[in-house]
Amino acid sequence: MLRTHTCGELRLDHVSQEVTLCGWVQRTRDKGGMLWIDLRDRYGITQLLFEEGKASAELLETARTLGREFVIGAKGEVIERYSKNDKLPTGAIEVRVHELVVLNPAKLPPFLIEDETDGGEDLRMKYRYLDLRRTPIRQNLMLRHQVARHTRGYLDKLDFIEVETPVLIKSTPEGARDFVVPSRMNPGEFYALPQSPQTFKQLLMVSGFDRYYQIVKCFRDEDLRADRQPEFTQIDCEMAFVTQEDVLNTFEGLIRHLFKNVKNIDLPEVPRMTYAQAMQRYGSDKPDIRFGLEFVELKGLDTDLTSGQDFPVFDAAELVVGICAPGCSSYTRKQMDELTEWMKRPQIGAKGLIYVRYNEDGTLKSSVDKFYDEGTLRQWAEAFDAKPGDLLLLVSGGADTARKQLNELRLEMGTRLGLRQTDDYRVLWVVDFPLLEYGEDEATGQQRWYAMHHPFTSPKPEDIPLLGTEPGKVRANAYDMVINGVEVGGGSVRIFQKELQQKMFEILGFTPQEAQAQFGFLLNAFEFGAPPHAGIAFGFDRLCSLFGGADSIRDFIAFPKNNSGRDVMIDSPSSISHQQLKELTIQVAAH
Amino acid sequence: MLRTHTCGELRLDHVSQEVTLCGWVQRTRDKGGMLWIDLRDRYGITQLLFEEGKASAELLETARTLGREFVIGAKGEVIERYSKNDKLPTGAIEVRVHELVVLNPAKLPPFLIEDETDGGEDLRMKYRYLDLRRTPIRQNLMLRHQVARHTRGYLDKLDFIEVETPVLIKSTPEGARDFVVPSRMNPGEFYALPQSPQTFKQLLMVSGFDRYYQIVKCFRDEDLRADRQPEFTQIDCEMAFVTQEDVLNTFEGLIRHLFKNVKNIDLPEVPRMTYAQAMQRYGSDKPDIRFGLEFVELKGLDTDLTSGQDFPVFDAAELVVGICAPGCSSYTRKQMDELTEWMKRPQIGAKGLIYVRYNEDGTLKSSVDKFYDEGTLRQWAEAFDAKPGDLLLLVSGGADTARKQLNELRLEMGTRLGLRQTDDYRVLWVVDFPLLEYGEDEATGQQRWYAMHHPFTSPKPEDIPLLGTEPGKVRANAYDMVINGVEVGGGSVRIFQKELQQKMFEILGFTPQEAQAQFGFLLNAFEFGAPPHAGIAFGFDRLCSLFGGADSIRDFIAFPKNNSGRDVMIDSPSSISHQQLKELTIQVAAH
Repeated sequence: MLRTHTCGELRLDHVSQEVTLCGWVQRTRDKGGMLWIDLRDRYGITQLLFEEGKASAELLETARTLGREFVIGAKGEVIERYSKNDKLPTGAIEVRVHELVVLNPAKLPPFLIEDETDGGEDLRMKYRYLDLRRTPIRQNLMLRHQVARHTRGYLDKLDFIEVETPVLIKSTPEGARDFVVPSRMNPGEFYALPQSPQTFKQLLMVSGFDRYYQIVKCFRDEDLRADRQPEFTQIDCEMAFVTQEDVLNTFEGLIRHLFKNVKNIDLPEVPRMTYAQAMQRYGSDKPDIRFGLEFVELKGLDTDLTSGQDFPVFDAAELVVGICAPGCSSYTRKQMDELTEWMKRPQIGAKGLIYVRYNEDGTLKSSVDKFYDEGTLRQWAEAFDAKPGDLLLLVSGGADTARKQLNELRLEMGTRLGLRQTDDYRVLWVVDFPLLEYGEDEATGQQRWYAMHHPFTSPKPEDIPLLGTEPGKVRANAYDMVINGVEVGGGSVRIFQKELQQKMFEILGFTPQEAQAQFGFLLNAFEFGAPPHAGIAFGFDRLCSLFGGADSIRDFIAFPKNNSGRDVMIDSPSSISHQQLKELTIQVAAH
Repeated sequence: MLRTHTCGELRLDHVSQEVTLCGWVQRTRDKGGMLWIDLRDRYGITQLLFEEGKASAELLETARTLGREFVIGAKGEVIERYSKNDKLPTGAIEVRVHELVVLNPAKLPPFLIEDETDGGEDLRMKYRYLDLRRTPIRQNLMLRHQVARHTRGYLDKLDFIEVETPVLIKSTPEGARDFVVPSRMNPGEFYALPQSPQTFKQLLMVSGFDRYYQIVKCFRDEDLRADRQPEFTQIDCEMAFVTQEDVLNTFEGLIRHLFKNVKNIDLPEVPRMTYAQAMQRYGSDKPDIRFGLEFVELKGLDTDLTSGQDFPVFDAAELVVGICAPGCSSYTRKQMDELTEWMKRPQIGAKGLIYVRYNEDGTLKSSVDKFYDEGTLRQWAEAFDAKPGDLLLLVSGGADTARKQLNELRLEMGTRLGLRQTDDYRVLWVVDFPLLEYGEDEATGQQRWYAMHHPFTSPKPEDIPLLGTEPGKVRANAYDMVINGVEVGGGSVRIFQKELQQKMFEILGFTPQEAQAQFGFLLNAFEFGAPPHAGIAFGFDRLCSLFGGADSIRDFIAFPKNNSGRDVMIDSPSSISHQQLKELTIQVAAH
């Protein structure tokens, strides 16, 4: 090796040893005949010392030419430091250098290679290889490695086998948009990149592999947001001869193992909530349960505390629902107006926001005093279990819309009240999702049923009779894992009988011929002895960003793409040669 | 779980326990009022017993309807077996069933699910999910998992970090043909799938990650042979601040670790051989050193034992070279003719094969007796260190051609003599490869220099002056690991200075503009403090097939493609919809 030690390794024990270090020049200080250099590598920073009188003139001259980010090798003696630096693990020593090699000089970097950099997102992405030198980003990738390592450690111990499934597969019409790959050997035909290895892992169950996992790249050609990437990584898992309960326990165990080994956190038992409960209590299928502010209905299916007062807004509403913000009764008029405007933004689209102040002196004051007397307001306050000083915030309208809007408000108030700390982790299972949802077919513009999870999810056996009559009421054996309001994983018990799978495709609008053409291999496989099976997939990038306490997944991916799907560092995608197009028998159409 | 135990788990200790097993019906025997079923899962086979009189009539009736590959659950009591089966780990017990559930019936499989199947390659691939049920194939995939696991274990311990590099990258003209992916968001532009993460791992070194690895899918759109797949897996590694020696030692350590942990073999120190030696002694840069039969030159650069006898073939030859096949002097005329014909096949293309028999009685007899007397033949035999009973086989011609032909013959003779046992592993480093080779540019038809390894490989410093004058003589700091004549890995010390990298691109025929357009990100990165670095990549599929003692990599890949790049199971590639093409702004050209 070109070095004897790393820059994070030397301690007082090493004093008087002769060592060679290699790394990058982080900083130099030249003062009173002493020259100090902070030398950095992946493992840490070590201080190098060059002293006039003790170091040769030539050596000092070379050392003084070193700029930021020069790559050097330095040989010298470890000595005890006069004034120690407690912030550095190597802060008790320095290395008095007597040999110095410039391995590679460096131009001035376009931004500071420091924890807090002056580089904007675009610049950092163009020079990602420099951005990756910064400690926070390096630590993110090391965290990612640890999450992967402990995931494998846990699953290997439970007899799961990692099996690689193909990347060049077949395009299917269901789900998100596929990336496709023209086949040169089969002109006019295309492979697709997998959105997930779903059918392959099910086939592995049919093959008897019984416990499968894979940490695997998946691909979706969707319009991108900050937290989406065209290529992303999944922890993909499947088990045979199990019930939903077994899957939940096994993967609750995985998450507990990861929290313990990566974050040193002992996770309590993970609570479970049905989809219906989650929607009613939080207006979301991925509730953030780090804090309460649970929904209370003033008018709903089995309650009505609002009628008979001729308030047309509430009288017309299917649902009047609110949250109680503790200690917020003192919000000023201006603050209330601002919050109301926030709710009216197009992203949320509320018509308005009604409030009731439960003043510290016990009086009640609302924005609907014209319609409701203090007695009614007090009834409402009781329904919320509110205390003097609290503020009730109410929305109304159609049930689904009102809940969605109030969910946004709840999260916002949670943030404003400081109830959403990144290092406070609350894990939750949401279960009993609906099997189907109704929506518009992009191609035809017509309304049809969509699989809420995917077409291979099994309905609850007791709900199967509803498939033909009220498909929207059929619940699935499907589950999501939610951490701090973020869906980190989801899965289901699968259909494993050909007839039921065919029925499902039929409901989703496939003709029998289409189903056979697209998924014939799976339907056929179910005829040759398919075991009951179930599985789950975790968003690995998302999981890592949660463990790292960050919102965006980008800084947990070594070389991410921007919102236009571009890698600005390598300048990809790019045009390809005429010769390549010709060999692939494709042409670029006018655009 | 639907089961209490697996089918590989029960022993005499479990006798009288109540258990539930799940699995596939492997075989049934119905004899004298007793019905036995071999129940199979991933872990083994357990015998189930149904006995007339003791089992209910209904239970017996159900059991008798079970066909091969039915998926069942069976509950019963573990009992000691009357006649034990020593071949099965569970052979001391059986389970007397009192509850039976048919979880899924099965059609008759299209081929036997046995170690030796009657299914041909095509049928097995179409029903790969059934083929994967066979024990040898399942064991291959489990072996693959173990090789991956122990690779990670070794590298993690040495502080290597696994970093995922992107799959959607940029097409480059150098190397094999790229698979490309049209970008919807960037019309007319394409991503490419990586042939290797080469430039990304080098950028990670520039970033300071200093020890990187990744078990990663790579892609090459090449015409396929039995041992090639369009998508394949690499163990991809890179280190900074190291010499070639460090890389060789680190990865010799990896291979030793894998042999120990996967095969329980203590590998001796791995010998090293230069490319020049390998070519001279074996006519191959990947010599199989399980056996000798080393080349001996009768006429070469510093020898000539053939001239002056007016044999025009040898007189015109640049090289006369042969091997000594021990104990083969008794080969019949017919055998010699057959061997000569074998050498003349177009795949080898030898003009002929000359032999010298060293008979058991000490006499010498050759196919060139007309030109050479017994004294000369005896000189030859001495050069070969031959003994009575041996057979000398000689080829002649241009040095490169003769060596290639003799390499084929050597391997063939090694096989015929039983010297190439799959469980005899001989590992070898081949070092000092030439940097460049001369060849035809497919696009222009002109001869030009190609990088023998890749354009990022560094020349030996002492050979750099030859770059401008005799590029063909420049040796690279490049190395291959060869096991039993198969190249399993290769790598090099990389160029890390911009000027040298630019010079290299220039030799390879790039204009400065082309080099900048294709590899500007790397050239730029080298200006910001790139450390010296080196790396290696192993062919993971190939390594697994070697460990598994098989020639083809296909049976070590869960879902391989055939020689036309088709997955016949899912029927891919396939045509895609007009809508998809339109969104991607591409058209299929006439073909």
